Amino acid sequence: MVIVMHANAAPEDIQAVVARIEELGLKPHLSTGSERTIIGAIGEGTVASQYMQHFIVLPGVDRVIPISRPYKLASREFSACDTQFKVGDVTLGSNQIVLIAGPCSVESRTQTLEVAHAIKEAGANMLRGGAYKPRSSPYSFQGLGQAGLEILADVRAETGLPIVTEVMAPEMVPLVASFADMLQIGARNMQNYPLLNAVGESQRPVLLKRGLSATIEELLMAAEYVLSHGNRQVALCERGIRTFETATRNTTDINAIPVLKAQSHLPIFLDPSHSTGNWQYVGAVARAGIAAGADGLIVEVHMHPERALSDGGQSLKPERFAEMVRQVRLIAEAVGRELTPVS
Amino acid sequence: MVIVMHANAAPEDIQAVVARIEELGLKPHLSTGSERTIIGAIGEGTVASQYMQHFIVLPGVDRVIPISRPYKLASREFSACDTQFKVGDVTLGSNQIVLIAGPCSVESRTQTLEVAHAIKEAGANMLRGGAYKPRSSPYSFQGLGQAGLEILADVRAETGLPIVTEVMAPEMVPLVASFADMLQIGARNMQNYPLLNAVGESQRPVLLKRGLSATIEELLMAAEYVLSHGNRQVALCERGIRTFETATRNTTDINAIPVLKAQSHLPIFLDPSHSTGNWQYVGAVARAGIAAGADGLIVEVHMHPERALSDGGQSLKPERFAEMVRQVRLIAEAVGRELTPVS
Amino acid sequence: MVIVMHANAAPEDIQAVVARIEELGLKPHLSTGSERTIIGAIGEGTVASQYMQHFIVLPGVDRVIPISRPYKLASREFSACDTQFKVGDVTLGSNQIVLIAGPCSVESRTQTLEVAHAIKEAGANMLRGGAYKPRSSPYSFQGLGQAGLEILADVRAETGLPIVTEVMAPEMVPLVASFADMLQIGARNMQNYPLLNAVGESQRPVLLKRGLSATIEELLMAAEYVLSHGNRQVALCERGIRTFETATRNTTDINAIPVLKAQSHLPIFLDPSHSTGNWQYVGAVARAGIAAGADGLIVEVHMHPERALSDGGQSLKPERFAEMVRQVRLIAEAVGRELTPVS
Amino acid sequence: MVIVMHANAAPEDIQAVVARIEELGLKPHLSTGSERTIIGAIGEGTVASQYMQHFIVLPGVDRVIPISRPYKLASREFSACDTQFKVGDVTLGSNQIVLIAGPCSVESRTQTLEVAHAIKEAGANMLRGGAYKPRSSPYSFQGLGQAGLEILADVRAETGLPIVTEVMAPEMVPLVASFADMLQIGARNMQNYPLLNAVGESQRPVLLKRGLSATIEELLMAAEYVLSHGNRQVALCERGIRTFETATRNTTDINAIPVLKAQSHLPIFLDPSHSTGNWQYVGAVARAGIAAGADGLIVEVHMHPERALSDGGQSLKPERFAEMVRQVRLIAEAVGRELTPVS
Repeated sequence: MVIVMHANAAPEDIQAVVARIEELGLKPHLSTGSERTIIGAIGEGTVASQYMQHFIVLPGVDRVIPISRPYKLASREFSACDTQFKVGDVTLGSNQIVLIAGPCSVESRTQTLEVAHAIKEAGANMLRGGAYKPRSSPYSFQGLGQAGLEILADVRAETGLPIVTEVMAPEMVPLVASFADMLQIGARNMQNYPLLNAVGESQRPVLLKRGLSATIEELLMAAEYVLSHGNRQVALCERGIRTFETATRNTTDINAIPVLKAQSHLPIFLDPSHSTGNWQYVGAVARAGIAAGADGLIVEVHMHPERALSDGGQSLKPERFAEMVRQVRLIAEAVGRELTPVS
Repeated sequence: MVIVMHANAAPEDIQAVVARIEELGLKPHLSTGSERTIIGAIGEGTVASQYMQHFIVLPGVDRVIPISRPYKLASREFSACDTQFKVGDVTLGSNQIVLIAGPCSVESRTQTLEVAHAIKEAGANMLRGGAYKPRSSPYSFQGLGQAGLEILADVRAETGLPIVTEVMAPEMVPLVASFADMLQIGARNMQNYPLLNAVGESQRPVLLKRGLSATIEELLMAAEYVLSHGNRQVALCERGIRTFETATRNTTDINAIPVLKAQSHLPIFLDPSHSTGNWQYVGAVARAGIAAGADGLIVEVHMHPERALSDGGQSLKPERFAEMVRQVRLIAEAVGRELTPVS
Repeated sequence: MVIVMHANAAPEDIQAVVARIEELGLKPHLSTGSERTIIGAIGEGTVASQYMQHFIVLPGVDRVIPISRPYKLASREFSACDTQFKVGDVTLGSNQIVLIAGPCSVESRTQTLEVAHAIKEAGANMLRGGAYKPRSSPYSFQGLGQAGLEILADVRAETGLPIVTEVMAPEMVPLVASFADMLQIGARNMQNYPLLNAVGESQRPVLLKRGLSATIEELLMAAEYVLSHGNRQVALCERGIRTFETATRNTTDINAIPVLKAQSHLPIFLDPSHSTGNWQYVGAVARAGIAAGADGLIVEVHMHPERALSDGGQSLKPERFAEMVRQVRLIAEAVGRELTPVS
Repeated sequence: MVIVMHANAAPEDIQAVVARIEELGLKPHLSTGSERTIIGAIGEGTVASQYMQHFIVLPGVDRVIPISRPYKLASREFSACDTQFKVGDVTLGSNQIVLIAGPCSVESRTQTLEVAHAIKEAGANMLRGGAYKPRSSPYSFQGLGQAGLEILADVRAETGLPIVTEVMAPEMVPLVASFADMLQIGARNMQNYPLLNAVGESQRPVLLKRGLSATIEELLMAAEYVLSHGNRQVALCERGIRTFETATRNTTDINAIPVLKAQSHLPIFLDPSHSTGNWQYVGAVARAGIAAGADGLIVEVHMHPERALSDGGQSLKPERFAEMVRQVRLIAEAVGRELTPVS
């Protein structure tokens, strides 16, 4: 870290900072400018940053600036190679783009099976569907729970599509992991640390969605929680952030895709359904995501969006999803990639 | 809800919307303007809003606007009287302002006891301290866990101060509730619904912190989760929101205080330590909170902020906390209130 | 507009609202639900919205919701056909994508000429370059002023590239318009109404950049200022918005592209240089913009970014720009479009 | 500035950075950690920060961090004493708090005179009122222009209240300055540099409002533009920032008050009318502002808010303003200050 002293800091203030740096086992490094002194505190990266708060409160200190990134296993510096891993027979993180689709909520066996067949025919590689639903209102449909998980497993058996579904509490991880091929951490739980620890322990592939107001750095630190349990099967998912703009439900942070590619080795997905909140814009933003370098998409599809128990407004009908896949395929080819063939 | 049709919507589109409204058991109500038609769908408030998404996807529909608030028990319309409840011997929500103070983390018995005595002498009514700490890095101090809870209980026995501490996972609620007088839901868990359900079931008083990017409406909907379990002992806490401004850790949404007072009957606290992230600004913002109508404050205090295991930069030393209490007392009197006497 | 009454509004309150609606020459329309009454006020769109504030302050009124859009000439409802117009020989808004490139600032004749030749060879259709520079510090390079305009005109004469350059004050419009083919309104001036009026009067093509914290609706209202002077040659430009994310200078609101296409008939550009603030991410976001449906790009290019007098960090070297054009061409073809040939 | 190299930067990369620092006349200062090298570039503050962009693009460079603040005359380091100056007979920046009030727009002589008498009687020291109005819609009332200035001057003659009014374009500064005692720069023009230069040249007192998405640092840099013309009579005004919260028109950044007091010597005002956008919350936020340390308030007051030509919803009636003044007076005393007596 770098400690910037006030222009009018006293020599004793500087001395006290240096003494404290040495007390912590770090190496101080002074630069004295015409206006002010700045002091580097050199040590093993994540160690130094633990102590930043200690210096902010010392007399004469203006600011403390972190230098090392606070995550390690998730960083590009840790692994120059892109991480690849399998969910069922599907490989994430390769040159082949992965399409995940399905309903927001599992509503019934028929509904789920019907949509699963439709998305598979259109080109999807995996099925998504919520059995446990985080809803902002306690009066909204909260999901079918375990019955939903059983439906998902049935539909996988019939269609061969691996399934990803959300888990919302640490004690539910074993149950959900016994049904699902991949565990989804939803945006609202990105910093639910007991849950991150639990999915880390599970050793199941994880789809980690970015929080509504999480920085890219915080997303990577959340991934670090999972990775630090030895579970290296983590895919990141941009799903829109909260901004002042109200024309769309969220703001798709398309910049996050090249930034995450530069700073991490983990596969990056985009969820254009949540990042726009409006089916009319899903296709355009899905194309943008692949053009920007995403490794996959996760898209909400429903046979009858106007009757969906949740998120109907942002769900595509199967024929619109099929059209989206056609467009995305052309974009994938334009960036030298291809869609993962449907097995 | 109100359904706004496109200017060029066809008569069949309008007819289909009306039919769907009736199918859902709601009453349609058309207003035909010179440019466009708008259609009200009238029914019991929270029911209608469940169906908004169904209409967004119908042809010819431009927008769907909610009319009823999506929460009920938390609303001012539900209770014209301000909610009051007790934590230990301390009453929250009365004309007497409640001061909660203590360290970010419980670090040791000595540290906690020392600071508890100091804050009590300065005028605090309750003790805060974290035994389980949500930290953005897996490499940061994560709290003492159950040992921390035991220290808190000991310190309560010695000082008489009721304690509030954070609970992070639903399965931990019974344990934490067996030690704490009040359960804190942290900002990162404001939309952790299994946790909200669990503290609702616990029937313990709850301090519900606003999420970093939660709207005031979402805060009230999170409270609704707790209230809907019959647990009416909920205090709300503004602790700063995330904005583009980087001069402070968060942006104190001071507007939220009068807005919450107008829209809800629940007691409102302000946490100026997190909402500024800098001890230098805590006093000014604490005064502002009481001036704006807050029912209490929760403030981080540490004997040696420069050695705190977490949040040192925003912690007050006891003498600065005492000075803050002196100032806040004068502000309380200026708005016709007083501080809760220390028992 | 729709006026939502409080659940406990008195009959006299409702009567007073109705009376006021009639007094304003609008038509009231009541819907009485089980909980509350809502009252539509029907009249010619933009007229009604002028009066919203009048109702907010009446007793018993909870909220007032606008129904009509506050812009008209900029709206898709005003013109189903996409607007096309020419800048020099280049057509904006057609199926052919337009590439604008050049330095942030005009620094010298040699620098500008050199970069102009390079971008033209790479495939750019127009030249950008600032003669008057809005800089956040008064101590930063403020541009060459009129000498910069003269350089731009010279370079146009030599290369045939039409030029777009920023104008910052109403009284400067005639001078800048005497040199430039297209007038740029910068992000900081998006709501500088005297300036919008002046460029409206000039009847010159206008490139209107979105403000850092402007909503899409406000961007269209700013366009409405220009359009209302009879100047229909307006192109909109997404250039990133300000959010909490600090990994990039701004957040590219990629959603804005399909939203603007749906709500307006004006051509849409993307500026990936400003929207990312980092040359490393410009290529990915440029591809995303075209994939999402943008009609053109405006990109900063400099022969020696490490010596640029402004914005070096987000400027591409000519060879990187050429590579970006190659990639963008493939994306354009994937969405059924093509790049405008260089004449 | 501090240049942080990538962990895997080559020795030649480091050498090139050092060479470039020396070429710019700055002094390099290397710190070599176990993971990476960081390089300080030491020179006269604002000079070094001009060159940040030059280093970002060099190979092996990860980040460049500014150290010196980019403003000087506006900084607390430049002047330890609080700046005080007079507008008419009223002193801004002293221990006596200044209350500015009046209508959003000057609508007529009668309206303005009536409200001026009312606010003076209630305790206001200065009159505000817009003659030129920045409106987001070209179809909204744009102000009376010069006729409005003449009304303001008349009302000053009758009441003795100094007047502050907005100026929107550089060429209007001489005219507006010939009528007004203080020139207001509105939020949308905070980064309108030709306008800042013009009011700087005018040597008139300036009320500089913070932009909707301007950081505190950018506000101080805007002030620096005015100050750098030798015009030291600048008061800053917090008027709410744009965030995701929609319950209020803007979010009052109450933190900005103590931050600005710490970082600058200029007087700080708060505009609770715009920062809340709702008359119901103006009183609470006005109290909060004074409690937090503001030197004054600027508040919208209208005899008949329900008929105001602009901003009626956030305007107080005179009797409510009088009540606000009573409350604010008590808060002022609680923080050891007083209201400026009405002359």
